[in-house]
Amino acid sequence: MEAELTTLCYIEKDGEYLMLHRNKKQNDPSHDLWLGLGGHFEEGESPEECVVREVREESGLELRDQRLRGIVTFSDGDWFEYMFLFSAGDFRGEMISCDEGELVWVEKERVLTELPIWEGDRIFLRLMAEDAPFFSLKLTYQNRQLKYAALNGKQINPE
Amino acid sequence: MEAELTTLCYIEKDGEYLMLHRNKKQNDPSHDLWLGLGGHFEEGESPEECVVREVREESGLELRDQRLRGIVTFSDGDWFEYMFLFSAGDFRGEMISCDEGELVWVEKERVLTELPIWEGDRIFLRLMAEDAPFFSLKLTYQNRQLKYAALNGKQINPE
Repeated sequence: MEAELTTLCYIEKDGEYLMLHRNKKQNDPSHDLWLGLGGHFEEGESPEECVVREVREESGLELRDQRLRGIVTFSDGDWFEYMFLFSAGDFRGEMISCDEGELVWVEKERVLTELPIWEGDRIFLRLMAEDAPFFSLKLTYQNRQLKYAALNGKQINPE
Repeated sequence: MEAELTTLCYIEKDGEYLMLHRNKKQNDPSHDLWLGLGGHFEEGESPEECVVREVREESGLELRDQRLRGIVTFSDGDWFEYMFLFSAGDFRGEMISCDEGELVWVEKERVLTELPIWEGDRIFLRLMAEDAPFFSLKLTYQNRQLKYAALNGKQINPE
Protein backbone atom coordinates (compact mmCIF):
# COMPACT_ATOMS: atom_id res chain seq x y z
CA MET A 1 0.00 0.00 0.00
CA GLU A 2 1.15 3.53 -0.68
CA ALA A 3 -0.05 6.32 1.56
CA GLU A 4 0.45 9.97 2.35
CA LEU A 5 3.24 10.77 4.78
CA THR A 6 3.27 14.01 6.73
CA THR A 7 4.72 15.72 9.76
CA LEU A 8 3.06 18.08 12.25
CA CYS A 9 4.94 20.11 14.84
CA TYR A 10 3.80 22.04 17.90
CA ILE A 11 6.40 24.67 18.73
CA GLU A 12 6.16 25.86 22.31
CA LYS A 13 7.32 29.10 23.91
CA ASP A 14 6.27 30.59 27.27
CA GLY A 15 3.29 28.25 27.59
CA GLU A 16 2.01 29.00 24.09
CA TYR A 17 1.91 26.98 20.87
CA LEU A 18 2.64 28.46 17.47
CA MET A 19 -0.61 27.72 15.63
CA LEU A 20 -1.43 28.01 11.96
CA HIS A 21 -4.95 29.23 11.21
CA ARG A 22 -5.51 27.50 7.89
CA ASN A 23 -7.52 30.28 6.30
CA LYS A 24 -5.75 31.04 3.03
CA LYS A 25 -6.46 28.00 0.81
CA GLN A 26 -10.06 27.17 -0.09
CA ASN A 27 -9.32 23.55 -1.11
CA ASP A 28 -7.50 22.75 2.14
CA PRO A 29 -9.26 19.84 3.94
CA SER A 30 -8.39 21.67 7.17
CA HIS A 31 -9.74 25.01 5.88
CA ASP A 32 -10.49 27.41 8.77
CA LEU A 33 -9.18 24.95 11.37
CA TRP A 34 -6.11 25.54 13.56
CA LEU A 35 -3.09 23.21 13.53
CA GLY A 36 0.61 23.16 14.21
CA LEU A 37 3.11 23.49 11.37
CA GLY A 38 4.13 20.77 8.96
CA GLY A 39 3.33 19.09 5.67
CA HIS A 40 4.13 16.34 3.21
CA PHE A 41 7.40 14.43 2.93
CA GLU A 42 9.63 15.03 -0.06
CA GLU A 43 11.40 12.07 -1.68
CA GLY A 44 13.69 10.23 0.70
CA GLU A 45 13.26 12.59 3.64
CA SER A 46 13.34 11.21 7.15
CA PRO A 47 10.63 12.49 9.54
CA GLU A 48 13.05 14.95 11.18
CA GLU A 49 14.31 16.25 7.81
CA CYS A 50 10.72 16.81 6.69
CA VAL A 51 9.62 18.66 9.83
CA VAL A 52 12.68 20.94 9.88
CA ARG A 53 12.12 21.90 6.21
CA GLU A 54 8.36 22.38 6.57
CA VAL A 55 8.70 24.59 9.66
CA ARG A 56 11.38 26.64 7.89
CA GLU A 57 9.19 27.09 4.78
CA GLU A 58 6.04 27.95 6.69
CA SER A 59 7.44 30.17 9.42
CA GLY A 60 11.09 31.03 8.72
CA LEU A 61 12.05 29.39 12.01
CA GLU A 62 14.91 26.88 12.35
CA LEU A 63 14.07 24.08 14.77
CA ARG A 64 16.88 23.09 17.14
CA ASP A 65 15.39 20.38 19.35
CA GLN A 66 12.43 18.77 17.57
CA ARG A 67 11.25 15.71 19.43
CA LEU A 68 9.22 12.90 17.85
CA ARG A 69 6.22 12.32 20.12
CA GLY A 70 4.10 9.85 18.23
CA ILE A 71 2.81 8.47 14.97
CA VAL A 72 -0.82 9.07 13.97
CA THR A 73 -2.58 6.80 11.45
CA PHE A 74 -5.50 8.64 9.81
CA SER A 75 -8.12 6.84 7.81
CA ASP A 76 -11.26 8.19 6.18
CA GLY A 77 -12.41 5.25 4.08
CA ASP A 78 -10.56 6.07 0.88
CA TRP A 79 -7.83 8.31 2.27
CA PHE A 80 -4.89 7.22 4.41
CA GLU A 81 -2.27 9.34 6.05
CA TYR A 82 0.59 8.61 8.43
CA MET A 83 1.57 11.68 10.39
CA PHE A 84 4.72 12.00 12.48
CA LEU A 85 3.96 14.27 15.41
CA PHE A 86 6.69 16.49 16.85
CA SER A 87 7.08 19.08 19.55
CA ALA A 88 9.86 21.63 19.83
CA GLY A 89 10.91 24.27 22.32
CA ASP A 90 14.08 25.73 20.86
CA PHE A 91 14.37 27.53 17.54
CA ARG A 92 16.20 30.35 15.80
CA GLY A 93 15.25 32.97 13.24
CA GLU A 94 12.59 35.58 12.61
CA MET A 95 9.03 34.63 11.77
CA ILE A 96 7.85 35.21 8.21
CA SER A 97 4.26 35.12 6.96
CA CYS A 98 2.87 31.81 5.74
CA ASP A 99 0.93 31.40 2.49
CA GLU A 100 -1.25 28.66 3.99
CA GLY A 101 -2.67 30.72 6.82
CA GLU A 102 -2.06 33.06 9.70
CA LEU A 103 0.57 32.20 12.34
CA VAL A 104 -0.50 33.00 15.90
CA TRP A 105 0.96 32.18 19.33
CA VAL A 106 -1.88 30.75 21.43
CA GLU A 107 -1.91 29.71 25.09
CA LYS A 108 -1.80 25.88 25.17
CA GLU A 109 -5.00 25.48 27.17
CA ARG A 110 -6.89 27.84 24.83
CA VAL A 111 -5.94 25.65 21.87
CA LEU A 112 -7.99 22.86 23.47
CA THR A 113 -10.87 24.92 24.79
CA GLU A 114 -11.40 27.77 22.34
CA LEU A 115 -9.99 27.03 18.89
CA PRO A 116 -11.75 25.04 16.18
CA ILE A 117 -9.47 21.99 15.80
CA TRP A 118 -9.96 18.42 14.51
CA GLU A 119 -11.61 16.30 17.21
CA GLY A 120 -8.80 13.73 17.16
CA ASP A 121 -6.19 16.46 17.64
CA ARG A 122 -7.50 16.92 21.18
CA ILE A 123 -6.40 13.36 21.94
CA PHE A 124 -2.79 13.81 20.88
CA LEU A 125 -2.54 17.34 22.30
CA ARG A 126 -3.56 15.92 25.69
CA LEU A 127 -1.05 13.07 25.36
CA MET A 128 1.67 15.63 24.62
CA ALA A 129 0.58 17.80 27.58
CA GLU A 130 0.82 14.72 29.84
CA ASP A 131 4.30 14.02 28.44
CA ALA A 132 3.14 10.54 27.41
CA PRO A 133 5.87 8.21 26.14
CA PHE A 134 6.08 7.73 22.35
CA PHE A 135 2.66 6.61 21.14
CA SER A 136 0.89 5.24 18.09
CA LEU A 137 -2.59 6.69 17.68
CA LYS A 138 -5.11 5.56 15.07
CA LEU A 139 -7.91 7.98 14.16
CA THR A 140 -10.73 6.98 11.82
CA TYR A 141 -12.91 9.76 10.46
CA GLN A 142 -16.09 9.71 8.40
CA ASN A 143 -17.34 12.97 6.86
CA ARG A 144 -14.96 14.87 9.16
CA GLN A 145 -16.43 13.23 12.28
CA LEU A 146 -14.18 11.09 14.48
CA LYS A 147 -15.63 7.57 14.48
CA TYR A 148 -12.90 5.53 16.14
CA ALA A 149 -9.67 6.07 18.03
CA ALA A 150 -7.11 3.54 19.28
CA LEU A 151 -4.03 4.26 21.37
CA ASN A 152 -1.15 1.79 21.01
CA GLY A 153 -3.58 -0.75 19.55
CA LYS A 154 -6.32 -0.36 22.21
CA GLN A 155 -9.61 1.32 21.38
CA ILE A 156 -10.21 4.52 23.40
CA ASN A 157 -13.07 6.17 21.48
CA PRO A 158 -15.99 5.62 21.55
CA GLU A 159 -15.26 4.60 25.13
CA MET B 1 5.32 11.91 -1.88
CA GLU B 2 4.07 8.35 -1.69
CA ALA B 3 6.33 5.66 -0.30
CA GLU B 4 6.37 2.06 0.83
CA LEU B 5 5.36 1.44 4.40
CA THR B 6 6.45 -1.68 6.24
CA THR B 7 6.91 -3.21 9.67
CA LEU B 8 9.69 -5.46 10.98
CA CYS B 9 9.53 -7.32 14.28
CA TYR B 10 12.19 -9.10 16.33
CA ILE B 11 10.49 -11.64 18.56
CA GLU B 12 12.65 -12.63 21.52
CA LYS B 13 12.59 -15.77 23.66
CA ASP B 14 15.32 -17.09 25.98
CA GLY B 15 17.96 -14.78 24.51
CA GLU B 16 17.14 -15.75 20.93
CA TYR B 17 15.43 -13.89 18.08
CA LEU B 18 13.01 -15.55 15.70
CA MET B 19 14.74 -14.97 12.36
CA LEU B 20 13.45 -15.47 8.84
CA HIS B 21 16.04 -16.78 6.39
CA ARG B 22 14.68 -15.24 3.19
CA ASN B 23 15.56 -18.14 0.94
CA LYS B 24 12.31 -19.07 -0.82
CA LYS B 25 11.66 -16.17 -3.23
CA GLN B 26 14.20 -15.45 -5.97
CA ASN B 27 12.95 -11.90 -6.63
CA ASP B 28 13.16 -10.88 -2.97
CA PRO B 29 15.57 -7.89 -2.58
CA SER B 30 16.61 -9.52 0.71
CA HIS B 31 17.11 -12.96 -0.91
CA ASP B 32 19.34 -15.19 1.25
CA LEU B 33 19.61 -12.56 4.00
CA TRP B 34 18.21 -13.00 7.52
CA LEU B 35 15.63 -10.62 8.98
CA GLY B 36 12.89 -10.46 11.57
CA LEU B 37 9.24 -10.91 10.56
CA GLY B 38 7.05 -8.28 8.93
CA GLY B 39 5.90 -6.81 5.67
CA HIS B 40 3.86 -4.19 3.87
CA PHE B 41 0.94 -2.26 5.32
CA GLU B 42 -2.55 -2.98 4.04
CA GLU B 43 -4.96 -0.08 3.49
CA GLY B 44 -5.63 1.94 6.61
CA GLU B 45 -3.65 -0.27 8.98
CA SER B 46 -1.81 1.29 11.89
CA PRO B 47 1.78 0.10 12.49
CA GLU B 48 0.68 -2.23 15.30
CA GLU B 49 -2.20 -3.68 13.25
CA CYS B 50 0.21 -4.37 10.39
CA VAL B 51 2.85 -6.07 12.52
CA VAL B 52 0.36 -8.28 14.34
CA ARG B 53 -1.14 -9.45 11.02
CA GLU B 54 2.22 -9.98 9.31
CA VAL B 55 3.64 -12.00 12.21
CA ARG B 56 0.46 -14.10 12.28
CA GLU B 57 0.61 -14.75 8.51
CA GLU B 58 4.32 -15.56 8.45
CA SER B 59 4.65 -17.60 11.64
CA GLY B 60 1.23 -18.46 13.06
CA LEU B 61 2.17 -16.61 16.25
CA GLU B 62 -0.07 -14.04 17.95
CA LEU B 63 1.88 -11.12 19.37
CA ARG B 64 0.80 -9.98 22.82
CA ASP B 65 3.21 -7.19 23.73
CA GLN B 66 4.71 -5.72 20.54
CA ARG B 67 6.64 -2.55 21.32
CA LEU B 68 7.46 0.12 18.74
CA ARG B 69 11.20 0.76 19.00
CA GLY B 70 11.94 3.08 16.11
CA ILE B 71 11.24 4.28 12.61
CA VAL B 72 13.74 3.57 9.84
CA THR B 73 13.83 5.67 6.65
CA PHE B 74 15.40 3.70 3.79
CA SER B 75 16.50 5.35 0.59
CA ASP B 76 18.30 3.85 -2.41
CA GLY B 77 18.09 6.65 -4.96
CA ASP B 78 14.79 5.69 -6.57
CA TRP B 79 13.28 3.58 -3.80
CA PHE B 80 11.95 4.85 -0.49
CA GLU B 81 10.67 2.85 2.42
CA TYR B 82 9.54 3.76 5.92
CA MET B 83 9.83 0.81 8.28
CA PHE B 84 8.32 0.66 11.74
CA LEU B 85 10.60 -1.46 13.91
CA PHE B 86 9.11 -3.55 16.71
CA SER B 87 10.29 -6.00 19.33
CA ALA B 88 8.13 -8.48 21.21
CA GLY B 89 8.65 -10.97 23.99
CA ASP B 90 5.21 -12.47 24.56
CA PHE B 91 3.19 -14.44 22.03
CA ARG B 92 0.74 -17.30 21.73
CA GLY B 93 0.19 -20.06 19.19
CA GLU B 94 2.14 -22.74 17.39
CA MET B 95 4.66 -21.91 14.71
CA ILE B 96 3.73 -22.71 11.11
CA SER B 97 6.07 -22.75 8.12
CA CYS B 98 6.54 -19.53 6.15
CA ASP B 99 6.39 -19.34 2.36
CA GLU B 100 9.00 -16.55 2.28
CA GLY B 101 11.76 -18.49 4.02
CA GLU B 102 12.83 -20.65 6.89
CA LEU B 103 12.05 -19.61 10.48
CA VAL B 104 14.89 -20.23 12.93
CA TRP B 105 15.50 -19.20 16.54
CA VAL B 106 19.00 -17.70 16.68
CA GLU B 107 20.99 -16.49 19.69
CA LYS B 108 20.90 -12.66 19.62
CA GLU B 109 24.66 -12.16 19.53
CA ARG B 110 25.03 -14.69 16.68
CA VAL B 111 22.58 -12.65 14.59
CA LEU B 112 25.12 -9.81 14.66
CA THR B 113 28.31 -11.86 14.34
CA GLU B 114 27.45 -14.83 12.13
CA LEU B 115 24.40 -14.25 9.97
CA PRO B 116 24.36 -12.42 6.64
CA ILE B 117 22.20 -9.38 7.36
CA TRP B 118 21.86 -5.91 5.83
CA GLU B 119 24.67 -3.67 7.10
CA GLY B 120 22.26 -1.06 8.44
CA ASP B 121 20.35 -3.70 10.40
CA ARG B 122 23.38 -4.00 12.68
CA ILE B 123 22.80 -0.39 13.73
CA PHE B 124 19.21 -0.83 14.82
CA LEU B 125 19.83 -4.27 16.34
CA ARG B 126 22.51 -2.70 18.55
CA LEU B 127 20.17 0.18 19.47
CA MET B 128 17.52 -2.37 20.47
CA ALA B 129 20.08 -4.40 22.47
CA GLU B 130 21.05 -1.20 24.33
CA ASP B 131 17.36 -0.53 25.01
CA ALA B 132 17.72 2.87 23.33
CA PRO B 133 14.69 5.18 23.62
CA PHE B 134 12.47 5.47 20.53
CA PHE B 135 14.67 6.47 17.62
CA SER B 136 14.48 7.66 14.02
CA LEU B 137 17.21 6.11 11.85
CA LYS B 138 17.89 7.07 8.24
CA LEU B 139 19.78 4.55 6.09
CA THR B 140 20.87 5.37 2.55
CA TYR B 141 22.00 2.49 0.37
CA GLN B 142 23.56 2.37 -3.08
CA ASN B 143 23.86 -0.99 -4.85
CA ARG B 144 23.12 -2.75 -1.55
CA GLN B 145 26.02 -0.95 0.20
CA LEU B 146 25.27 1.35 3.13
CA LYS B 147 26.43 4.83 2.16
CA TYR B 148 25.02 7.01 4.92
CA ALA B 149 23.33 6.63 8.29
CA ALA B 150 21.83 9.26 10.58
CA LEU B 151 20.38 8.72 14.04
CA ASN B 152 17.74 11.22 15.17
CA GLY B 153 18.94 13.63 12.48
CA LYS B 154 22.68 13.35 13.26
CA GLN B 155 25.04 11.55 10.87
CA ILE B 156 26.67 8.46 12.43
CA ASN B 157 28.08 6.65 9.34
CA PRO B 158 30.55 7.19 7.78
CA GLU B 159 31.85 8.40 11.14
